[in-house]
Amino acid sequence: MQSTKVNQLKKDVKLDNPILLVGLPGVGHVGKLVVDHIVETFEAEKLVEIFSPSFPPQVLVDEKSTVRLVSNSFYTCKAGNHDLLLLAGDQQSATTEGHYELCDLYLDIAEEYGVSKIYTLGGFPTGQLEHKDEVMGAVNNVGLVEDLEKHGVIFKENEPGGGIVGVSGLMLGLSQFRDIDAACLMGLTSGYMVDPKSAQSLIKVLSSMLEIEIDVNELEKRAREMEKIVANLMDQKQQQQQMLPDTTPDEDLRYIG
Amino acid sequence: MQSTKVNQLKKDVKLDNPILLVGLPGVGHVGKLVVDHIVETFEAEKLVEIFSPSFPPQVLVDEKSTVRLVSNSFYTCKAGNHDLLLLAGDQQSATTEGHYELCDLYLDIAEEYGVSKIYTLGGFPTGQLEHKDEVMGAVNNVGLVEDLEKHGVIFKENEPGGGIVGVSGLMLGLSQFRDIDAACLMGLTSGYMVDPKSAQSLIKVLSSMLEIEIDVNELEKRAREMEKIVANLMDQKQQQQQMLPDTTPDEDLRYIG
Amino acid sequence: MQSTKVNQLKKDVKLDNPILLVGLPGVGHVGKLVVDHIVETFEAEKLVEIFSPSFPPQVLVDEKSTVRLVSNSFYTCKAGNHDLLLLAGDQQSATTEGHYELCDLYLDIAEEYGVSKIYTLGGFPTGQLEHKDEVMGAVNNVGLVEDLEKHGVIFKENEPGGGIVGVSGLMLGLSQFRDIDAACLMGLTSGYMVDPKSAQSLIKVLSSMLEIEIDVNELEKRAREMEKIVANLMDQKQQQQQMLPDTTPDEDLRYIG
Amino acid sequence: MQSTKVNQLKKDVKLDNPILLVGLPGVGHVGKLVVDHIVETFEAEKLVEIFSPSFPPQVLVDEKSTVRLVSNSFYTCKAGNHDLLLLAGDQQSATTEGHYELCDLYLDIAEEYGVSKIYTLGGFPTGQLEHKDEVMGAVNNVGLVEDLEKHGVIFKENEPGGGIVGVSGLMLGLSQFRDIDAACLMGLTSGYMVDPKSAQSLIKVLSSMLEIEIDVNELEKRAREMEKIVANLMDQKQQQQQMLPDTTPDEDLRYIG
Repeated sequence: MQSTKVNQLKKDVKLDNPILLVGLPGVGHVGKLVVDHIVETFEAEKLVEIFSPSFPPQVLVDEKSTVRLVSNSFYTCKAGNHDLLLLAGDQQSATTEGHYELCDLYLDIAEEYGVSKIYTLGGFPTGQLEHKDEVMGAVNNVGLVEDLEKHGVIFKENEPGGGIVGVSGLMLGLSQFRDIDAACLMGLTSGYMVDPKSAQSLIKVLSSMLEIEIDVNELEKRAREMEKIVANLMDQKQQQQQMLPDTTPDEDLRYIG
Repeated sequence: MQSTKVNQLKKDVKLDNPILLVGLPGVGHVGKLVVDHIVETFEAEKLVEIFSPSFPPQVLVDEKSTVRLVSNSFYTCKAGNHDLLLLAGDQQSATTEGHYELCDLYLDIAEEYGVSKIYTLGGFPTGQLEHKDEVMGAVNNVGLVEDLEKHGVIFKENEPGGGIVGVSGLMLGLSQFRDIDAACLMGLTSGYMVDPKSAQSLIKVLSSMLEIEIDVNELEKRAREMEKIVANLMDQKQQQQQMLPDTTPDEDLRYIG
Repeated sequence: MQSTKVNQLKKDVKLDNPILLVGLPGVGHVGKLVVDHIVETFEAEKLVEIFSPSFPPQVLVDEKSTVRLVSNSFYTCKAGNHDLLLLAGDQQSATTEGHYELCDLYLDIAEEYGVSKIYTLGGFPTGQLEHKDEVMGAVNNVGLVEDLEKHGVIFKENEPGGGIVGVSGLMLGLSQFRDIDAACLMGLTSGYMVDPKSAQSLIKVLSSMLEIEIDVNELEKRAREMEKIVANLMDQKQQQQQMLPDTTPDEDLRYIG
Repeated sequence: MQSTKVNQLKKDVKLDNPILLVGLPGVGHVGKLVVDHIVETFEAEKLVEIFSPSFPPQVLVDEKSTVRLVSNSFYTCKAGNHDLLLLAGDQQSATTEGHYELCDLYLDIAEEYGVSKIYTLGGFPTGQLEHKDEVMGAVNNVGLVEDLEKHGVIFKENEPGGGIVGVSGLMLGLSQFRDIDAACLMGLTSGYMVDPKSAQSLIKVLSSMLEIEIDVNELEKRAREMEKIVANLMDQKQQQQQMLPDTTPDEDLRYIG
């Protein structure tokens, strides 16, 4: 495979000003958890598969020991009154240039389906183990802020300070050249582990925005498992602090390890 | 050399639905040990040599202090009733894109020879010094599982959990686009050193599948040398544990270092 | 975006033998601080925007939570009797080849505007926390040295010993092929943090060379903040040395950490 | 600069079956020291300059604070009865593919000048601080061994065990495709520092092979400086060993650090 390969699985699919949700692997896998969950819950239909020499040279193995090449895919489903287009998948680009090439390709496909708005979904690392039920936003058009705030998205000046790296940021930046409105919604997350709790925070915002109900039972189950792990970690931390009583209590693990 | 170079050494070679065995350097060099051993034992004939700017910029030196550029090669031999095609060599790609380009080239060549089935051979790292005589499999077509199990291959749900990286995985993924059946056979190995013992486990499975005898004397000799090294390592570990009697005995070295 | 994209924002702008100042992120962000400061102070006009797949795949977020793709831009302003062309921006290339490609593009644009001379601005790491009000120079034409020395630039044989890496160096090297005179001016800086003090040293030299006054109030404010941080760091160092009275006092932090 | 640039400085230079000596930066800078020394001593004439986006994006600064872009160059000189072609320079490729591309270009140029034989010069790291006056060889044609041994080159089975990486190895490997005889001559060196002593060992072999005298005064001076540094290092080591009398004396520093 010398160049990126686009497999069109369904032809002549017409969507009505669809909203694109992007959820690829990233901080806390928050974006991926959300979009994978919507694909499953709404039984979204796969439209397009993308393979690329910019992805890591890897296959994944399923429960039947059957492999498939890493790929990203577009799905569609009806959610309330909205047609959704969903970009889900296994990996982001492994090279700098590949990021730009692939995001432009994603936007080409989005435009073909007449996408009217893009939400890229991700996690924002806080370095704190305690869950904070908060979704932070960034936009490529300041006019989007007011409406997003109504649905509970928080905006902070110049945040994230380090910018937004990868597909979540690049899709916003590159869609400016195409006059497509786009926002990045980031669930706050520790940054240390997969975070289904933060994914639920994001889904709450999306539910409000899209005026739909999204069953989060499955995510809730996974969240409870993670909570046990986190509780253990915090116990250990407290014990360590009791053994070193003269150090300032430090709730911020970001700089540990 | 600005692009990959394919040296056809023999013309007009016709093979009868050959089976391709792929064994390039990787975990424990298990796959390479097996295919190099078959090339030698069956005096396989070299058909094609491949040089590529995606390989590390390196020459290897032989016993006569003579160098050769790193390369991968296709060989053929008769093994029982089967025509074998063998992909052996010095290196995998040093770049992400090179992996995809080269694996596609390998499949082009395989198709020219009419390959009917592909087995990529590798090692699966257990993190345990103790040898386990086990071969794990993954397939690109679930229909292959039953037959492989008859020959002693073990299949585990979603294993390897991290997928399969490099030529062993990519050949399976990319051959799906060409409707060629392919399986990856992984000898369990510590992951810390070259493992001729694990190579023998793989050869046992191959012997059964291909209904041939493969003399493993040479591998057995190398395995005995490795066993001495492993025994030394395990002695040291035991001594360390006796000196730290309050730590839980931990047979898993994977996370050490 | 498969290739670098040049956005011409103003057409038919004619400049009179402009001097190009280059200030992109680098050691102590000294060059970037200076050129960004001139762009703001002189209300320079943006002429050209450059986006490139060689830049890191990143967007930056402003005070209104609005993103923009990382880019570099050419600005122009009148400063005293001189037309200035300014190259400012967010990032240098993330790849080796991208550095060469982009610097050549910058020089193409510079030539279109009839640039007569280039100054690349950067920092020279001393490894010393104490500020040294000194600007070191390197040139692509030995005839430039005498004049620069008059304006306070210091030249040292074979310094910097490791050469000059990135846009500050490459612009000098590549402009030799175009017979454009160019010098690199490096403010001495610790190398550990953003250094507005060193930026002021550079501005002093530029003011003298261009015969203009540049208000440095804003930089002075930021410098005072940094000074507090540095003072703290030096206190800590002194305390550590008092606790280890037998070690030689070492004012050079370069090899620490 | 989007592609490699070849500057022909002298036209219509005819050489008589020249021998190519290659000495670029590498282990102990041994090869570079030798070829740079010959260029200077024999006042070799520069024929061709090569610039490339595969080189690190860097300029070097000379004693007059004047920069030049990193490059490699071909020189020629008469040495005894031989026309010599010399490849000297600042850097090897910074990318995998660049190594292959550049070495092929070097061979194109070598062929244009009618090169009859190639010697790539480098260092072989021993991990030992003690100097060993020995030059090890590897060839691309076994027929070269006997003659090289007469001039004092040592050959060892399968050495170097890790092959030869970079231009010294690749030139041998790639010249096989062009039927040019080539040998790599490696001065033994610690591998920890620039080694003018090892360069002298190489020059002794070259002098014998080319039947010329090469004044090594300059290298001798530098060698004496390095010897002082080495003596200091060895003193320190001995002191450390006396303070830890129960450890086995280990003259091999290779695995330290």
